[in-house]
Amino acid sequence: MAPTVAAAEAAISSAKHTRKAVGLAARDASGHLAPLTITRRSTGDDDVTIKILFCGICHSDLHSIKNEWGNAIYPLIPGHEIAGVVTDVGKNVTKLKAGDRVGVGCMVNSCQACDQCSSGFENHCSSVIATYNSVDRDGTITYGGYSDMVVVHERFVVRFPDGVPLDAGAPLLCAGVTVYTPMKYHGLNVPGKHVGVVGLGGLGHVAVKFAKAFGMKVTVISSSPGKREEALAQLCADAFIVSNNPDEMKDAMGTMDGIINTVSAHIPLAPFMGLLKPNGKMIMVGLPEKPLEIPPFNLIMGNKMLAGSSIGGMRDTQEMLDLAAEHGVMADVEVIGADYVNTAMERLAKADVRYRFVIDIGNTLNKDSAAASQ
Amino acid sequence: MAPTVAAAEAAISSAKHTRKAVGLAARDASGHLAPLTITRRSTGDDDVTIKILFCGICHSDLHSIKNEWGNAIYPLIPGHEIAGVVTDVGKNVTKLKAGDRVGVGCMVNSCQACDQCSSGFENHCSSVIATYNSVDRDGTITYGGYSDMVVVHERFVVRFPDGVPLDAGAPLLCAGVTVYTPMKYHGLNVPGKHVGVVGLGGLGHVAVKFAKAFGMKVTVISSSPGKREEALAQLCADAFIVSNNPDEMKDAMGTMDGIINTVSAHIPLAPFMGLLKPNGKMIMVGLPEKPLEIPPFNLIMGNKMLAGSSIGGMRDTQEMLDLAAEHGVMADVEVIGADYVNTAMERLAKADVRYRFVIDIGNTLNKDSAAASQ
Repeated sequence: MAPTVAAAEAAISSAKHTRKAVGLAARDASGHLAPLTITRRSTGDDDVTIKILFCGICHSDLHSIKNEWGNAIYPLIPGHEIAGVVTDVGKNVTKLKAGDRVGVGCMVNSCQACDQCSSGFENHCSSVIATYNSVDRDGTITYGGYSDMVVVHERFVVRFPDGVPLDAGAPLLCAGVTVYTPMKYHGLNVPGKHVGVVGLGGLGHVAVKFAKAFGMKVTVISSSPGKREEALAQLCADAFIVSNNPDEMKDAMGTMDGIINTVSAHIPLAPFMGLLKPNGKMIMVGLPEKPLEIPPFNLIMGNKMLAGSSIGGMRDTQEMLDLAAEHGVMADVEVIGADYVNTAMERLAKADVRYRFVIDIGNTLNKDSAAASQ
Repeated sequence: MAPTVAAAEAAISSAKHTRKAVGLAARDASGHLAPLTITRRSTGDDDVTIKILFCGICHSDLHSIKNEWGNAIYPLIPGHEIAGVVTDVGKNVTKLKAGDRVGVGCMVNSCQACDQCSSGFENHCSSVIATYNSVDRDGTITYGGYSDMVVVHERFVVRFPDGVPLDAGAPLLCAGVTVYTPMKYHGLNVPGKHVGVVGLGGLGHVAVKFAKAFGMKVTVISSSPGKREEALAQLCADAFIVSNNPDEMKDAMGTMDGIINTVSAHIPLAPFMGLLKPNGKMIMVGLPEKPLEIPPFNLIMGNKMLAGSSIGGMRDTQEMLDLAAEHGVMADVEVIGADYVNTAMERLAKADVRYRFVIDIGNTLNKDSAAASQ
C-alpha cells in the first residue's frame, strides 16, 4: 500500500484549495453556527468530490462546536454523517463515478499502510484523519458535512445501496456503524441471542433495529417509562425494562448475552452487569465525561467484560449499509432546514429529538446566504 | 445428568458424617488457626476420598479466616489447593482408584445439570459449592484442605499427571487455573502474541510460566524494581517494566495483545490500558476492594476491553495440569509445617513469600495434636 499512499499524499499536497464551498461554522465556544464560505481542494487522483445533500447531527457535533472536549479549532464546521451524490472523481478512482449516491462518515483519511488499516480498521489507525476539526495531510483543517460539497479519498467513501434513502440513511454513517460494529465483533449478531440496549436515543434506536435485523431477542433498558410503548410497538423490541425499577431489573438478571450501552451520562454500571449471563459483555458506545466505576466482583464473578467501541472501519461501514438495505434499517429522523440548525442544537442538548436531526443541505444551504454573512 | 445428580444428592444426604478428620481451623476473626477434630462423610457412590498430603495457602484463605469478606462461618478450615492420594472410591467412580495422585481446587460440587455445568463451566453454576465455608448439599458446612482427608464428588477431583509434584503442583489448582483460563478464552495462548503480567506474586509468577509455555512474549509490569532480575533471569520473562517509570511505560505503549492483572490493590488502570494494542484486553484476576475506575476514553478509543475472570471449570483445570506437566510449569513454593501456618499467614499479609506457601499436611498435621487441643 505504501507507494499508493505516497502518491496520494503528493497529490493532496499539490492540490490547491481553490474551490469555494459554503458551510455552517461555529466561530467560538458559543457554538453558534452561521454560514461561512470556505475552500476545498481540487479533486486529487484518488479523490471523490461529493455534492452534499443531507448531513445528520450527531451529539459529538454539539460537544465539538462548544469546545466541550477542549480541542476545537475555529472556525469549526461539524458533520460526519454525510450523504450526497458524486460530482467528479480522480483518475485512479475505480469504484465510484459521477452520479453515484454515496456517504462519508467520521474519517476522511488514514495512513492506509499500518496493520490496522490493512485489516480494515482504519478507525484504529494512529494517523486517522477525522472528517472535521482534524489536521489533514496538507496541513489544512478538515471541515465537515454541514457544507454543500466535500472532497474525500475514495477509500473513505461508501456507496448508498438502493433502498437506503439519503436522509434517513445519513445517520447510519456514524450512529449505525457505532452500534453495528461491536455487535458484529462481540458475537451479538447471532439469531436467538439476547441483547440489551441501554438508552433509547440516536444510537439506541438504531441498535434495536440492527439487533432485530440480526434476528436477536432485544430488551430496551431505559430510565424513561414513557418510552415503553415506542420501544415495543414501533421499534419492535421484545421487552422493555425501566432501569430504576428493581423488580423489572431483578426479573431479567442473568439473561443477556450482551448489552450495548449508549448512555453518555454517568450512571452506575453494576446493575447492568447483573443482567448479563456468565461471559456476558457490556459494550460502551457512549462517552461519559467521568471515569466508569465498576466493583471488581461484578466483573470477576461470571467472567463479565466491559468493552469500549468506537465507530468501525470502512469495510464494516459498507457492510452495515448493505445490511441496512436488506432489512430496511434506517434512522428515525427529523429533517430540518439549514436555518433551523441552532434551534436543533438547543433541542438536542435537551434530548428533544426522536431520534436524529438531519439537515437538508441540498435544498436549504445556499451560497447567497453565505456570501451575505461574510 | 439430572438422575445422576439426584442419586448423588440422595447418597450424600444419607451419608453420615462419622469419619473423624483433623483440620487447622480459625474460630473467630482473629484468624488464628489451631487443630480441630471434625467429621467428614463416608464415601458416597460418586465420591472419592483423598488423603491430603499438601495444601497451598491462597490469599483468599487469609481474607476468609479474618472474615474480611464478611461471610465467614466459624469454625472455618480454609484451603482449596489440595493435593493428595486417593484412599477409596464409591461404586460409581470410574476415572480414579485408590493410590492415584489427585487434586481438588476451589469447588467440590455444583448442580451438574445447568447450561454452565453442561458446558464445562461448573465455576459459573449458580449452585456451585465452594471447597470451604460453603453450605454443602446435606446442609453441613464444607471444610477445606488444611486437613488430613476430604471426600469429594469425582467430577471435582483432577488427576495429577506424572511429573507434576504434589507440593509445587498444589497451587496450580487455584492460582494456576485462575491465570490459565482467561489466557485460553481471550486468545492469549497464541505463540508470538504479547501478554503483560501486572504484579509478580502467587498468581503473576504462574501466569508468566504459562504464557511462556504457550510460546508468547511476556512482559512483567511491577511497581518493584527489585523484581526485574527475578522476572527476567529466573522466570524467563522477555521484558520488565517498572509501572511508575513513565519512560518505560511510554516505550511499551500500544504493544500488548492482552494483560493479566493480578494486583488486588487499588491502582489506576488507565496507564495499563495504554499498553494495549487496539482490541486489546486487560483481564482482572485480582479482587481489589474498591470499585475499578476507568476513563471511558481509555476503553472506547481502540476498542479496549476490561474483563474479569474467576478460576475455571473442571475440564480446563485438568487441561491446565496436563499442560503444566508437558512444559514443567509449577509454582515456586515454600513448603512449611502445620505448626508454622500462623506465621505464614502473617508473612503472606506482608507479601513476604516467593511465591506460595504450601503446607506439608502429610508429615506435619497429626491427630494427636488435634486431640490435645480439644
